[in-house]
Formats: sequence, C-alpha cells, structure tokens
Amino acid sequence: MSEPLRLGIAGLGTVGAGVIKIVRQKANLLAERSGRPIEIVAVSARNRDKDRGVSLSGYDWEDDPVALATRPDVDVLVELMGGSDGPAKAATEAAIAAGKDVVTANKAMLAHHGHALALAAEQAGSVIRFEAAVAGGIPVIKALTEGLAGNEITRVMGVMNGTCNYILTRMQSAGLPYDEVFAEADKLGYLEADPELDVGGIDAGHKLSLLAAIAYGVQVDFASVALEGIHRITKEDIKQASDMGYRIKLLGVAQMTGRGLEQRMSPCLVPDTSPLGQLEGGTNMVVIEGDHVGQIVLRGAGAGEGPTASAVMGDVIDIARGIRFSTFGRPATGLVKAAPAMGTSPAAYYLRMTLDDKPGALAKVATKLGEAGISIDRMRQYSHESSAAPVLIVTHRTTPKPLALALDAITALDVVADTPVALRIEEV
Amino acid sequence: MSEPLRLGIAGLGTVGAGVIKIVRQKANLLAERSGRPIEIVAVSARNRDKDRGVSLSGYDWEDDPVALATRPDVDVLVELMGGSDGPAKAATEAAIAAGKDVVTANKAMLAHHGHALALAAEQAGSVIRFEAAVAGGIPVIKALTEGLAGNEITRVMGVMNGTCNYILTRMQSAGLPYDEVFAEADKLGYLEADPELDVGGIDAGHKLSLLAAIAYGVQVDFASVALEGIHRITKEDIKQASDMGYRIKLLGVAQMTGRGLEQRMSPCLVPDTSPLGQLEGGTNMVVIEGDHVGQIVLRGAGAGEGPTASAVMGDVIDIARGIRFSTFGRPATGLVKAAPAMGTSPAAYYLRMTLDDKPGALAKVATKLGEAGISIDRMRQYSHESSAAPVLIVTHRTTPKPLALALDAITALDVVADTPVALRIEEV
Repeated sequence: MSEPLRLGIAGLGTVGAGVIKIVRQKANLLAERSGRPIEIVAVSARNRDKDRGVSLSGYDWEDDPVALATRPDVDVLVELMGGSDGPAKAATEAAIAAGKDVVTANKAMLAHHGHALALAAEQAGSVIRFEAAVAGGIPVIKALTEGLAGNEITRVMGVMNGTCNYILTRMQSAGLPYDEVFAEADKLGYLEADPELDVGGIDAGHKLSLLAAIAYGVQVDFASVALEGIHRITKEDIKQASDMGYRIKLLGVAQMTGRGLEQRMSPCLVPDTSPLGQLEGGTNMVVIEGDHVGQIVLRGAGAGEGPTASAVMGDVIDIARGIRFSTFGRPATGLVKAAPAMGTSPAAYYLRMTLDDKPGALAKVATKLGEAGISIDRMRQYSHESSAAPVLIVTHRTTPKPLALALDAITALDVVADTPVALRIEEV
Repeated sequence: MSEPLRLGIAGLGTVGAGVIKIVRQKANLLAERSGRPIEIVAVSARNRDKDRGVSLSGYDWEDDPVALATRPDVDVLVELMGGSDGPAKAATEAAIAAGKDVVTANKAMLAHHGHALALAAEQAGSVIRFEAAVAGGIPVIKALTEGLAGNEITRVMGVMNGTCNYILTRMQSAGLPYDEVFAEADKLGYLEADPELDVGGIDAGHKLSLLAAIAYGVQVDFASVALEGIHRITKEDIKQASDMGYRIKLLGVAQMTGRGLEQRMSPCLVPDTSPLGQLEGGTNMVVIEGDHVGQIVLRGAGAGEGPTASAVMGDVIDIARGIRFSTFGRPATGLVKAAPAMGTSPAAYYLRMTLDDKPGALAKVATKLGEAGISIDRMRQYSHESSAAPVLIVTHRTTPKPLALALDAITALDVVADTPVALRIEEV
C-alpha cells in the first residue's frame, strides 16, 4: 500500500469532530477504498482545552492555522473554520502557496474568493475540493462537476438552507406565524449567530453561486445573486398557496439566459406534487437539469456533523485516490465573468396585498396590471372583518420588469394599504 | 492541451447514437471540462447500413467488436452492445487484455462476470466504469463509490426498472388490471424483447447486485438476489395498499446483516408520503443510507438515449481527466464473497388471499398465523358477491421464515381458494 495521505485539520467544531471520528473509527475501510491510509497529523482550533467528545491524541497541535497549513508533513489542509475571510482564507492561501491540497466546507469563503483561490490553486498545482460547502451530505458538487459533465446544464435549483425550510414547513403544518416559528428555531439552535445568513437567503445564496460557477463555466459571482429572504412570508401566504396546490420554498435558481446568468435566491411557489414541493423540514434538495440527462433530483441532510463530515471525507478519499481536476470543473484561467441577467426568464407570479374596502379598489389594481401588460389568471378577495381586504392575485406568465412597474404603480394607489408581496411561481 | 482521448464505440443502438451526438456536438465543452479533446476513432455494430440519425463520417468501421477493442488507436472501449456474454464480454475482455479502459452500460455482463472482469482489469492496469449500467442518468455509482466513500453503507434501495414502475403506477392511476397495462406497455415499446427481464425483476436485480458489491465491498453476486416479479400484483392489491397509505413498488434492497448479505428485488409496500412512494411513471430512484450521511435520495430518468448517454459520457470524462480507481471501489483481489443471508431482517407484511365464504374460515387463517408466532396488525374481509371472500391481513413485524411456514400452513387449509400473496412492507 502506498504512502499515507496526511491531513491537517483547521477548525474543530461539530464537523471537525465528525471528520476525526470517521478517520479514527474507519481506518481500514478508508485505506481499502482509497488505496492508502488516511492519517491526521495535526489540528488547530481557537481553544485547545475544549472537550469535543473525540480524542486528539496522536495529533500535533497548532495554535496558528497558517502554521498548520504549511507544515511539511501535511498533504491536505482540511479547512473547517468558516468565515469568508480571516484565518480561513489566510490558511487556505498559505496551504495553496505551499503546494498543499485543500478540502473545505466554507461556502462563504468560496462565494467571495472562489475564483481567486481557484486561480492560485491552478498555478500551484493544488486542488481545492468543497463538497461539504453545498447541501451537506448530498454529493451534488460531484454530480454536477463529474457525473453530469457531458451535459449543458439548463437549470440548477435548490432548497439549500434547512433552517428556512424548517421554518416554512413548520408554519404550514402548525399554522403558526413567521415570528413564532423563527423564535422556535432560534431556541432549537437552528439559526446562525447572524440569523440573516439563514432567513435572508445569504447562506443559500453562497451555495447557489458555487453551483452556478460549475454549471455554466463562469467565475463565482455571489454579488450578482438576487437575494430575498423569507421574512415577509405570512402563514396566510402559505395557506393560500397551499389551497392552490403550491408550497412556498426558499428556492435558489441559476440559469443561463440569452442575456446572461440569472441567479436568484428567493421564496417561490412550487407545485406541492413536485419533489421540491414535497420536501419537508430541514432536508435539502438540489435539482439539476441537463440537456441530455433531463432532471436529476438529489435529496439529503444539508447540515449536521455526520452528513457534512461525510462530504469532507468524500473529497479527502478522492485526493487519496489521486483524483485531481480544476476547482470548478474547468481551468480557472478560462472562466469568464458572466453578465448578470436578472428578470429575463418569464414566470407566473403570486401577488398578495391589502386593499381598502372601497368600491372600485380591485378594479384599480387590475387596471394597473393591465397597463403593464400583465394578465390575471386568478384573483381572490378574502372575507374580512376589518376595513382592509386581503387580496390574492395569480398572474399569467410575465417578466420581472413589467411586474416591477405594475407593483410600483399599485403601491402608489390610494386604495393599497401595504407594499404588495410578489412571489415567483417556479415551473419545476 | 494534452493528447485526445480516443474512443471506440461498440454498439450503435439508441445509447450509442446518443453518445456520438454528444461527442460531435459538444467537442469544446468536453475538452474544456476534460482538459483534453475527446474523439471517436472507430465504431462497430451488427448492421453497417442502418440509419441511426447520426453521422458516422470520420470514424473507422469495424465489423468485429473485438478488433475494435484492440485497435492501437483506441484508448477506451465504450461497450454498448448489451448481453451478458457473447460479443460484449469478448470485446470487454479483449480491451482489458490490450490495456484499454472500458466504459459500459451493460448491467447483465457485470452482474454475471463483474468480479472476473474487475480482477482482469486490475491485473492489466485498466479501469472499468459502468455508471450507465444502473439507473440511467442518475450518477449513483459515482455517489456510492466516491461521494459517500466515508460511510459504512447500512442499506441501499432502489426502484430501478422504469417499466415496472410505469406499470404499477398506471394500474393505480387508471384502475386497470395488470394484464391490460402490460399490453399497453408492450405496445408503447417499454418492454425488453424478453419481458421477464423487466417484470420478473431480473434487469433491476442485475443493478442491485452491482450496487451491493460497491456498498459492501463484496464480489458481485447476482445469483443470490432473491427475485420476485410483479406478475401477481392485482389492481385490488394496489387499491388496498393505497387505502392504508402505501404504494406498491418493485423495490430492490441490499443490506448487510449479522448473518450475511441480503439482496432482494421484489414488490414491496412503501409509505405513500416517502420519496419512493411518491415516485411515479418511468422515473428511477435510488436511496442510499450511510452511518454518517443518513439517507441520500437520487432520482432521475432510468433509461433512454439522453440520460444513458449522459452517464456514459460522465465516465468517459472521468477517464479523460485521469480519474482511475478500482472497478467496485476497492481492490478486486480483496473482495470477498459475502454469505447470502435471506430472511433475516424483520418487517411487517401485507397478505392477500381468497377464502371460501364459510363460518370459521377467517379463524383458521388467524390460528395458523398465531401458531407461527405472527401477530396481526389489521385484517379486513371485503364485501363480495361470489362465494369467495377476499381477505387482507397486515401482520406485525415478523421474519420471512415463520412467514413462509404460516403461508404454507394457510395454503394447505381447505378454506383457502388460492395461494396467498405476501408483500413486504419496507420501512423507508
């Protein structure tokens, strides 16, 4: 059997502990599958004395992750610290400069610096692997970069933030308002320290930008992801969507259009009979559509010690097997910056607004939609006790530009009590 | 850019034509992703003059697939002829002996000869890749062999014959009997020349044996797959299962138990709310359960030109990228032959039988179950017009051995009009 592959692990949170458990418990299995032993030689974290439920004996300790990354006896830096900049980026850059390979779970770092890191890795002859950065245990980076590499990707979609999906499905099943379920999720420890990362769609947006870079052979461009969080979704939206046969999901969609790359992370309606519509709780799902393969759906746990450590180990075993290719599946020097194209692909929309209960109010709204060239598929005014009438409109297919014009005009009407909510109905 | 990877394609049916289309239409994309051009140098098929809707210009023709496989200018034999033996096996063996790599869609050949071929490839330094042999376009071989390689696999399940799933879901949606839907499927060209391959579970059983070999690090052992087809499923079974919240699927399950490897391909009941239960029509689904990753579900088209060609090209691109590892994910010389263990894992069962409408008939059946130590969860006797009463029983968890004893005893009763049907209720 060949020389061992020697890991340096930076970051000993849940995932780091999970990786150590697998390496310790499965030495034989890993060696059999990799063709060589996999060993941990050194680790690094902020706090040396914390009990992580796993033995660190036999591993050298490094206070400085950069020192860990550049140790002569480390072949692969396993970067599990997180954070787009700071120590994670410093250690990754140092590892690459030292000719090491990098396995990381860090979606924020790659969303912001993925292209620069890929260029550096290419120049140094290093590989960067990041299966754990997207959708936890689901081997979606591998499927997209390798398994489906014979396809032009026509669309990539995903529910990739388990916390948001938990909140939305719990609002549905328990009939509870957003604020209450948000508080529940917080109590259960489901939310990031900055909850905007979850409910604002940022975390899922990071992931989408990585999938888009692979799918379309372009530079990662998180800044161009149109982000919209789930804050404004009410339990009534969920109920009304459900009545029409839809579920509301925080859905990421990336597609290349004639005018450029569209990347959106926003609450959308999807049919309740579709795999995305049927996805409940904290589970993740990624849907990949290719010109030859058709639609491939991948589903699994998007977070947690075991699933994320499983993804990290998949990458480590690949490197141990000698599997090496470009970070985003094509030479980094050849990746162009896609023109960001928002609002080109048409869809039907769900609109919700509150109108003053006056004669002609509904007609005014309908007129504004008509003036923007948007025709109405369905409209409902719900019975109400106050003087404000909840109104729900489903449009026929339109594009975001006329829709935005219409919404501005509607918002300016004297009969409209609040800013309308518009949710895309994604055809899946 | 490096030297081109040169393919020889044996077999120009639907999938072969699909592969040629991708290589011709996507030369630039493939070269970018692979790091080198992918070229077809020669092809072989039974009939040279057939119109396949794709140009063969620029390719040498070989009448003999073995001659194709051993051409000095061929790096990879793409074997798309099918058939467990004959020309497919001869060409594959010849290619390996000549030090070529092999990409094949041939589940029958690998189910029967996979271990011998893997040994030969290992000795010759060749790789055999077979993504297209299992579940069409779904990159499941890759997920299992690579992405999830950090896991002990606890169970692999799959609906991997689209024709059977089409028949079963059509029986449900249209309320039609098996024979009628079978005839429909035949007319639509969904059935293999020998329909037993589909409805007898053989084709899906081949696929299951390949997944089991990878998952558990054992020699492929198709002969030990317990096969049961869908012939005996009635529309009443489907209706009654549905009433209880289940769907009937031709489900493959492989799991390693304390007593050996269990491999079954049989009609099972699964909850209608599960991803497997929700799978309709000709789509395939594979469920992989690992000790760290939990449950991963993969879904997509299981057959057809585009999806299968996509899988073939994924393997070809891997080889072009220099990705090389053992056929079944571990050195073939180290693969042991697992002891086949049937009937060790417990489950609830659905039993359907027809009883003579006589006093005490039901009691006799219940007694036989009790004598075998099987307790009853639910029992229904349906209203009927003839003198034969349809009876449905759902047992509590039991194992196949007492169940077989009970069924023998029940069949021998003078009140039972036909051989009872027993379907496992798989917990998914």
